[in-house]
Amino acid sequence: MTPQASTPAYRRLSVEERRSQLLEAALSLFAHRAPEDVSLDDVAEAAGVSRPLVYRYFPGGKQQLYEAALHSAADELRTCFDEPHEGPLLPRLSRALDRYLGFVDEHDTGFSALLQGGSVVETSRTTAIVDGVRRAAAEHILSHLGVAEPGPRLRMTIRMWITAVEAASLIWLDEEKQPPPDELRDWLVEQFAAVLAVTARRDAQTDALVQALAMDL
Amino acid sequence: MTPQASTPAYRRLSVEERRSQLLEAALSLFAHRAPEDVSLDDVAEAAGVSRPLVYRYFPGGKQQLYEAALHSAADELRTCFDEPHEGPLLPRLSRALDRYLGFVDEHDTGFSALLQGGSVVETSRTTAIVDGVRRAAAEHILSHLGVAEPGPRLRMTIRMWITAVEAASLIWLDEEKQPPPDELRDWLVEQFAAVLAVTARRDAQTDALVQALAMDL
Repeated sequence: MTPQASTPAYRRLSVEERRSQLLEAALSLFAHRAPEDVSLDDVAEAAGVSRPLVYRYFPGGKQQLYEAALHSAADELRTCFDEPHEGPLLPRLSRALDRYLGFVDEHDTGFSALLQGGSVVETSRTTAIVDGVRRAAAEHILSHLGVAEPGPRLRMTIRMWITAVEAASLIWLDEEKQPPPDELRDWLVEQFAAVLAVTARRDAQTDALVQALAMDL
Repeated sequence: MTPQASTPAYRRLSVEERRSQLLEAALSLFAHRAPEDVSLDDVAEAAGVSRPLVYRYFPGGKQQLYEAALHSAADELRTCFDEPHEGPLLPRLSRALDRYLGFVDEHDTGFSALLQGGSVVETSRTTAIVDGVRRAAAEHILSHLGVAEPGPRLRMTIRMWITAVEAASLIWLDEEKQPPPDELRDWLVEQFAAVLAVTARRDAQTDALVQALAMDL
């Protein structure tokens, strides 16, 4: 380790590096405290920089910082869904869920605050960011299922399952992260297969997918 | 019809009757417009009363009116869950869902605005009202299942299903109320049975319930 690396406050960072450093510090604070309880002072302290510096990067104050941190978390969350289109389908879903649950575990309180709403900093813009991630999740699943034009029943099934996964994540955080993440992941994958099978009884498109999934295993 | 009944503005109503009349007028407006687009003037006009009268009942203005309307809608929603503890279980769930979907159909935009959040009038108090209804729904289901002390896996399954039902309701409103309510209801009941069956594989308490449900049918 060079001396510079151990004293990050005095290293000359590029604008982008500095911004990332501040967002990272903010995200680590949001992970253990409600957004309304995190001040710009706290972020400055956590990042080891001066308060004016934080204000220079986020002149809109707390709300701007929160939205920027949320954008950065949403981008990170999206990368959880990146999974090669190779091999059996359910194990792909399983690997994506592993990364997603890792994200939930890491961001903890910030994740709950965001999804539960009712926070003082919630605005229609933050809701739009979260909805964007939900849509991305649904699109990823459909692309792995190889469906370009999902019918309403298949689309509804997938959106319902995504919402159920969110609910499970919040309950999981609330219940001291029980059951263990591996069990939760397997359980969620099984629920996915089960609700698809239910929809298959009333929808030919979903039925064809369920047949393909069964051959896949 | 008596002449008085056709000119409600000039009938002498008790305080409680007047309050109910105003809340009903407000709820019918929220059903077709976002909460932030409903003014006290609109409510006065819809109820056929003067604006000062509306202010007398809701001195806190729009926010107070919205919260009161929400409380009244939450009470109504709770009555949808009332179902005698008699006969096979899944048909009981089916009847409760029928009433619930009737409520969603009637309250329409107001229902979406409330659950989707991001509304300017959303506060932690409105979130608490909605959470109270969710909890009531979960308790009703557990009481019908005859479970006094649900384990974490059973509780999580039921809460996930309730969230999935909410998601389905919002999508349903968004997609011009397709599929027809009877089909949606049956589909949701089938999903309930399917996710319980999945949980039964890893939870003895749920397994016992699923056996009982199967005997029931």
